[in-house]
Amino acid sequence: MKLARYLPILEWGRGYGGVTLTNDLVAAAIVTIMLIPQSLAYAMLAGLPPEIGLYASILPIIAYALFGTSRALAVGPVAVISLMTLTAASAVAPPGSPDFIAAALILALLSGLILIVMGVLRLGFLANLLSHPVVSGFITASGIIIATSQLKSVLGIKASGEAMPELVTTLIANAKDTNVYTLAIGVIATGFLFWVRKGLKPLLVRFGLAARPADLVAKAGPIVAVALSILAVIAFDLEAKGVKVVGSIPQSLPPFTVPLFDAELWQRLAIPALLLSVIGFVESVSVAQTLAAKKRQRIVPDQELIGLGAANVAAAFSGGYPVTGGFARSVVNFDAGAETPAAGAFTAVGILLAALFLTPLLASLPIATLAGTIIVAVLSLVDFKTPQAIWRYSKPDFAAMAATIAVTLLIGVEPGVIAGVGLSLALFLWRSSRPHAAIVGRVPETEHFRNIKRHKVFTDPRILTIRIDESLTYLNARWLEEFVLEQVAEQSELRHLILMCSAINGVDASALESIEAINHRLSDSGVKLHLSEVKGPVMDALEKSHLLDDLTGKAWLSQNEAFQSLIRTSDEEDNSPIVPDNLAARGWI
Amino acid sequence: MKLARYLPILEWGRGYGGVTLTNDLVAAAIVTIMLIPQSLAYAMLAGLPPEIGLYASILPIIAYALFGTSRALAVGPVAVISLMTLTAASAVAPPGSPDFIAAALILALLSGLILIVMGVLRLGFLANLLSHPVVSGFITASGIIIATSQLKSVLGIKASGEAMPELVTTLIANAKDTNVYTLAIGVIATGFLFWVRKGLKPLLVRFGLAARPADLVAKAGPIVAVALSILAVIAFDLEAKGVKVVGSIPQSLPPFTVPLFDAELWQRLAIPALLLSVIGFVESVSVAQTLAAKKRQRIVPDQELIGLGAANVAAAFSGGYPVTGGFARSVVNFDAGAETPAAGAFTAVGILLAALFLTPLLASLPIATLAGTIIVAVLSLVDFKTPQAIWRYSKPDFAAMAATIAVTLLIGVEPGVIAGVGLSLALFLWRSSRPHAAIVGRVPETEHFRNIKRHKVFTDPRILTIRIDESLTYLNARWLEEFVLEQVAEQSELRHLILMCSAINGVDASALESIEAINHRLSDSGVKLHLSEVKGPVMDALEKSHLLDDLTGKAWLSQNEAFQSLIRTSDEEDNSPIVPDNLAARGWI
Repeated sequence: MKLARYLPILEWGRGYGGVTLTNDLVAAAIVTIMLIPQSLAYAMLAGLPPEIGLYASILPIIAYALFGTSRALAVGPVAVISLMTLTAASAVAPPGSPDFIAAALILALLSGLILIVMGVLRLGFLANLLSHPVVSGFITASGIIIATSQLKSVLGIKASGEAMPELVTTLIANAKDTNVYTLAIGVIATGFLFWVRKGLKPLLVRFGLAARPADLVAKAGPIVAVALSILAVIAFDLEAKGVKVVGSIPQSLPPFTVPLFDAELWQRLAIPALLLSVIGFVESVSVAQTLAAKKRQRIVPDQELIGLGAANVAAAFSGGYPVTGGFARSVVNFDAGAETPAAGAFTAVGILLAALFLTPLLASLPIATLAGTIIVAVLSLVDFKTPQAIWRYSKPDFAAMAATIAVTLLIGVEPGVIAGVGLSLALFLWRSSRPHAAIVGRVPETEHFRNIKRHKVFTDPRILTIRIDESLTYLNARWLEEFVLEQVAEQSELRHLILMCSAINGVDASALESIEAINHRLSDSGVKLHLSEVKGPVMDALEKSHLLDDLTGKAWLSQNEAFQSLIRTSDEEDNSPIVPDNLAARGWI
Repeated sequence: MKLARYLPILEWGRGYGGVTLTNDLVAAAIVTIMLIPQSLAYAMLAGLPPEIGLYASILPIIAYALFGTSRALAVGPVAVISLMTLTAASAVAPPGSPDFIAAALILALLSGLILIVMGVLRLGFLANLLSHPVVSGFITASGIIIATSQLKSVLGIKASGEAMPELVTTLIANAKDTNVYTLAIGVIATGFLFWVRKGLKPLLVRFGLAARPADLVAKAGPIVAVALSILAVIAFDLEAKGVKVVGSIPQSLPPFTVPLFDAELWQRLAIPALLLSVIGFVESVSVAQTLAAKKRQRIVPDQELIGLGAANVAAAFSGGYPVTGGFARSVVNFDAGAETPAAGAFTAVGILLAALFLTPLLASLPIATLAGTIIVAVLSLVDFKTPQAIWRYSKPDFAAMAATIAVTLLIGVEPGVIAGVGLSLALFLWRSSRPHAAIVGRVPETEHFRNIKRHKVFTDPRILTIRIDESLTYLNARWLEEFVLEQVAEQSELRHLILMCSAINGVDASALESIEAINHRLSDSGVKLHLSEVKGPVMDALEKSHLLDDLTGKAWLSQNEAFQSLIRTSDEEDNSPIVPDNLAARGWI
């Protein structure tokens, strides 16, 4: 059982056979057709030779099939990770150079090791630091950067830069060098691919095809665009007219590569590799969970870390670059009927055959077509609805998202992620450090206590009840001291302070210390501290401390009982007669 | 009113006169006597010439009196901040050198600017990152390091190192050079000071003195030790016998100094200055709050940042080094009857007079006596009870404390603080990322729902109720998805999932997205999602989103109503007759 946890194949492999095999083979064929142009395009986006995209789609898939827990996830190069690879490797070598390719291998290895270590140490929770608004903002901004950067290939000009200001400036500066043939191919290919995505499926459905197969046929659009544009280049000899093509791609198995060990280089690439791993993991898990839920299956996030880590290590040793689970390809795989990770393995065989036999056909493929493929793919990542919804729902979350988008667009992808994570954490800490609290009083003729600001309630100047609507931790422990002492400083007649703990799910050591300090300080100024409605698990913990012994007041089970008894005691101390009329007038009988 | 907020003197200054003046003057005289040896000693601990300790006790006090909110806090050099100054400045120049003194000025300025910026931007909550166990562990470890480092002066030998391994090694290696006269003075002075601290007060009380004056007289012990040891040095010509003395101290007003502006140096000192500021702030606020509470006064932490910042800027421009509010001196000030910050200003005048007129008398003061003063002062910081209490109360908090102590002792003060803060935050994030949640069922013959693991409750295989005992944030949003889908994957008959939200105080945008994802994924597997007992403010927020429209189930006011209705609906769908007997058998009528 223990081994099966780390090697999920032992589980699904047992019952493998007939129907499942057929389903997996069909899905693999469809995914392979979709992946060939995409792999080439993303490698190009990452600044790498096109064949590296193919290599990154072979062994990593097999490695994930062995260790991953999702049955339908398709692993390989994806747009955002390709952009991050480009950015990170560009910092150490010019794109396309041997050192750049070496850096991409190191990134894959580091990323694989980071993911495996996180998986083994169960550190997957650290990925939580990437909040939804930050990831969503980052993906949108990355999509815009990627689409803009690909305009250069559509125009047949040069442009550079990791962020929008430089990209746009260089695009405009070089626009005069536009090659009309390239532009024609680029615009036609991009327009065709947009139409395939939006218009082909309804058309097929109108001609009587069912929705699902229509969808899958539409997904094969890019391969048609690739084939037609290759034919166009050959037919009109466009290469001689300045249209850039992919050129000769080696016909080979994925090479066995050993990433360079260079401590300084590893250090420089460590943070980018970390960011890239975590972004890749978060996206991949989200896709995997969506697909698993459709069949009431489960994925195990900590094991997913190991699966994706293994895929990246495999990429590093087989001439690839960083990979993760892709959204589009996984959905296609699932829709095409993939039932087990074996579908992924068959896809790997498909791509392997393509690398061995199809590559000569791709030499005349215009780069502009690949750019069109990328543009169409990434524009679907750009999402302007989520920012609006988040703006309506929560301004702090919107601030984190806006910062991520702005920094990513204006400065670059790594600063963008870091700014988003930093701001999210700062906002979270800030919110945690000042929780909601209310002074409560008793609703007349009931046993309920409500916020004095929102309800007409009965209070007593000698007794103050504060309800805190949050667990007490070190982040709000000092706020608690300040808040309580501030309330007390304003009430000169005060004798009893009750902390109503009905919404407190935990009290850490710092907060315990603060409650003890409050108890001590209140006793210096003649006020007794009481607790009420402490939850069972919290009380169990408090019993391990001295607090309950030292408390100048009592821990009461019910707030109503506390309030009633303390009024009675105070009246006795004041020697004022307790007459039922008096009590009734105060609304508490 | 606005100005008075930033200049608290405008408030207490208005009613100043007669009795208050007398009280403040008496307190100032007592604190001055206590501060003279302490200031010299802490400057020495920081690796600075002794007069710098006096300078740091003059203008900073005045600056704090103008801007600070505590009436009794006494600002100046303190042990832990002196140690941190030594560590930080040693990294850029050898202790005692002109560059070292310049670095101490820069540290004071940076620290002042950091505190002021935090105060103006209301960033005081960032100090919350220093949890109580971390601060407590850090102070204990610093106390041990300081006491150990002072042994060299008691023995009259050389020793170096920021952390215990090097300190102890060099102490042992040089122990053979021990000077017996120095040792005699050191041991006698230290013993005397310990006795003064522990034994003198009871003795004075036995001779008829009241407790409080007895306490104050005992606080003057160090000045007696200083006087006697100066006399001993002169009488027996101990300087010629190798006893190190303070030497000539310039008789002067605090000099006007302008901290060097050197971008690279500032950058290197920025992190140490930040740590030192925040540690100083946390300690100072804690002292100020304790004293303010005794008189039902209030301090304003964000304004305290500005007060302490101003004090450090003043130190930087008057030949001082980083300062903060000290525990011992503030308590003495308070106990001696200080009523306003004017007492601080009078203390400043006292120290100024000492710097001008008393310094010639101090030339023969043996360093060993100062070391004794430090040892006695810092050993009271070393606290072995708190670690035990924290161990009993919370293992994660203990882990953070133990890490802080271990790293501080073994590696150094800055890594110690950073390790503690990092581990506390990681543990907090980890705990926040997996909150307590329970599957609940109905307690028969009641409307209460309780954890199925702890109570005998009624459940239905078609309905699952999950109660989450924590606010939903981006840190636990993914956990929520995993947890819910895991539960659902195990229950094949399931039709309705109820999230019972009675303990949820907030839902951020990431968690909202996760609930939407859960809703969507459950609907893919034919399960409806319901919410129950959503608190008012949470519901107000959710109404700004699409969740309630998209929800496949309903948002129920009461969990009982939800459960009852959904059983009925399921029975109807199953065409099973609803007979009261059947309901009664299930325990819910």
